[in-house]
Amino acid sequence: MIEDRLAPIRAVAAAEGLDAIALVPGANFRRVFGRDFRQHERPLIVVVPVNGPPAAVVPDLEMSSFAEIGLDGEVIAWRDQDGYDAAFDALGETMALRRIGVEGQQMRVFVQLALSRAFPGAKIIDAHIPISALRLRKTIGEIAAMREAIGVTERAFAIAHAETRIGMTETRIKSILTRALFEEGAEDVAFDAIVAAGTNAAMPHAHARADYEIRPGDALLFDFGARIGGVCADVTRTVFVGHVTDEDAAFYSAVLDANEAGKRASRPGATAHDVDDAATAVLEASQFAQFIRNKTGHGLGLDVHEAPYIMRGNHQLLEPGMVFTVEPGLYDLSRLGVRIEDDMLVTGTGAESLTTFLRDLTVIATR
Amino acid sequence: MIEDRLAPIRAVAAAEGLDAIALVPGANFRRVFGRDFRQHERPLIVVVPVNGPPAAVVPDLEMSSFAEIGLDGEVIAWRDQDGYDAAFDALGETMALRRIGVEGQQMRVFVQLALSRAFPGAKIIDAHIPISALRLRKTIGEIAAMREAIGVTERAFAIAHAETRIGMTETRIKSILTRALFEEGAEDVAFDAIVAAGTNAAMPHAHARADYEIRPGDALLFDFGARIGGVCADVTRTVFVGHVTDEDAAFYSAVLDANEAGKRASRPGATAHDVDDAATAVLEASQFAQFIRNKTGHGLGLDVHEAPYIMRGNHQLLEPGMVFTVEPGLYDLSRLGVRIEDDMLVTGTGAESLTTFLRDLTVIATR
Repeated sequence: MIEDRLAPIRAVAAAEGLDAIALVPGANFRRVFGRDFRQHERPLIVVVPVNGPPAAVVPDLEMSSFAEIGLDGEVIAWRDQDGYDAAFDALGETMALRRIGVEGQQMRVFVQLALSRAFPGAKIIDAHIPISALRLRKTIGEIAAMREAIGVTERAFAIAHAETRIGMTETRIKSILTRALFEEGAEDVAFDAIVAAGTNAAMPHAHARADYEIRPGDALLFDFGARIGGVCADVTRTVFVGHVTDEDAAFYSAVLDANEAGKRASRPGATAHDVDDAATAVLEASQFAQFIRNKTGHGLGLDVHEAPYIMRGNHQLLEPGMVFTVEPGLYDLSRLGVRIEDDMLVTGTGAESLTTFLRDLTVIATR
Repeated sequence: MIEDRLAPIRAVAAAEGLDAIALVPGANFRRVFGRDFRQHERPLIVVVPVNGPPAAVVPDLEMSSFAEIGLDGEVIAWRDQDGYDAAFDALGETMALRRIGVEGQQMRVFVQLALSRAFPGAKIIDAHIPISALRLRKTIGEIAAMREAIGVTERAFAIAHAETRIGMTETRIKSILTRALFEEGAEDVAFDAIVAAGTNAAMPHAHARADYEIRPGDALLFDFGARIGGVCADVTRTVFVGHVTDEDAAFYSAVLDANEAGKRASRPGATAHDVDDAATAVLEASQFAQFIRNKTGHGLGLDVHEAPYIMRGNHQLLEPGMVFTVEPGLYDLSRLGVRIEDDMLVTGTGAESLTTFLRDLTVIATR
């Protein structure tokens, strides 16, 4: 059972010419072991060699949770009062390693330094991409969880649209949105929600402002998602407050056209490049080409940003079971930003938009 | 203005014998620059040398937000379609460095590898502790934000107590609690809330279960907090469901005694060791000594776990303006767990518990 879970990791290590892969809690860890652990100042690591038993270093207070994994190898606990140096020394004695692959976007430097001390002379190699590639095709369970997370997210959208009023601050609207997410059954947020109006909506990763009250004519961008079973939803809609000018409506339409073009290009056998190219070409051909800022999307699953990255130059083939966002946007720092984001599942013959919330030009808070 | 913000970082670099400190988004970054940035697959880094202008590598889509920092040095943007290698090469040409301090618990390995390539031959040193030490004494603004975050958290507790019913699942109660947090004004959660009943409450970092319905006699542990202005609240209370046995009441009382002893020992001039020792000695002297699991607490601020760590052997002196948790617990894996956590602010003459929510033995869902 546990060996079945380790086999894909061992295969990646072998294929990459590594002696072992060291996993830390996060999306890959959850896929392999079915559990997650909080990470703060206490290192937790599992080293999986190409052959032979794995070994782990685990904070003592996580030992009872960790035991449920059923790891068939040495598990070395450490207590706060003793520190973790001796545990890593003991880890180093369980096996001899020269090339160790790690998740470079997940492991923090202090864990890597401890690992390097445990295996002096070993080379640490960033194997984030091949390790995470194990999650490119979603499991049936992950897809079911994502559908549920998206359903919760879209119901929360409807509530936020209904409750938003002219004069509310961005942070107030964010509170409404997030409260609604949990009301509707979220287990967690996938990421800190973005609620941004006017020129703040032109900041791709804007933070909600406590000192800005939304005004008639503002574009109002919501980018958020629920997490269920560890799996993320990630949905963006942009609406207008009170009324919308013809010029802003044209700006919006250009983004919607790009969103649709990107989704149409999503199918097995196409590449990530093709999807970005289809969406971006629409924006480039519009009168708003100067306001293009970022790539069209990213993979979505146990991580909120993961492969496949939907960008020109990425010739990764799309395969059934992959999930990624299509989220073209236009960002005019002097006026407004618009982004429309859907979560696409590649099927045997095309792709399904798991997100179904209305994309038509919408004006809220009209009463 | 910006130089005033950089001066403490330059001083740490000089004191630690470093040529520069490289900061990534997170708590220290927020203290220094007053802003935070989301971190996913896109590296953002600011290198602050002991002398001379700083330099930064920034994802293009964050440039407009980053500009608000007003960094007086070279800022090198990179776009998704180009990747970040050239930006790090350019960073390496802005200054010559041999010893670079980093935040080991914050920086991820792929950023460190890019930094090492930018400055070939430079030694990367984990300076997390001295850098974070700049945040040991809270600012007046941080303390005000923490009071607000704790107020929100405690009002959410009251709502969750009132709405919890026998037969609800842990995940359902967690949803109620988190919804209430945002209803009451949270900008974000400080961390994913823990709601755990029965033996699950004995797991110090338990995850709420969707398949466990709370029963009469269960201990029910809530550990959660709001985040406001980036600053975290972190509060734990344990209540009983429906009724409580005399044995469990004694178990609870031992933890409450330890909580009070830890708080009494909190004052300027005492050490982190003294606080843990006072609390833990009470548990050791009780009939439940075998159920002690972890240290008494941790610092709290822009990070939910930071210095000072409240544990035996840590002879860090407590100073006015420091904030830390006092959260002794007892964990009997066969029956229940109890933890009672308060957030303490060291004052000129003693310490103030910023948390005031009732700690008396409480039985909920009695109707």
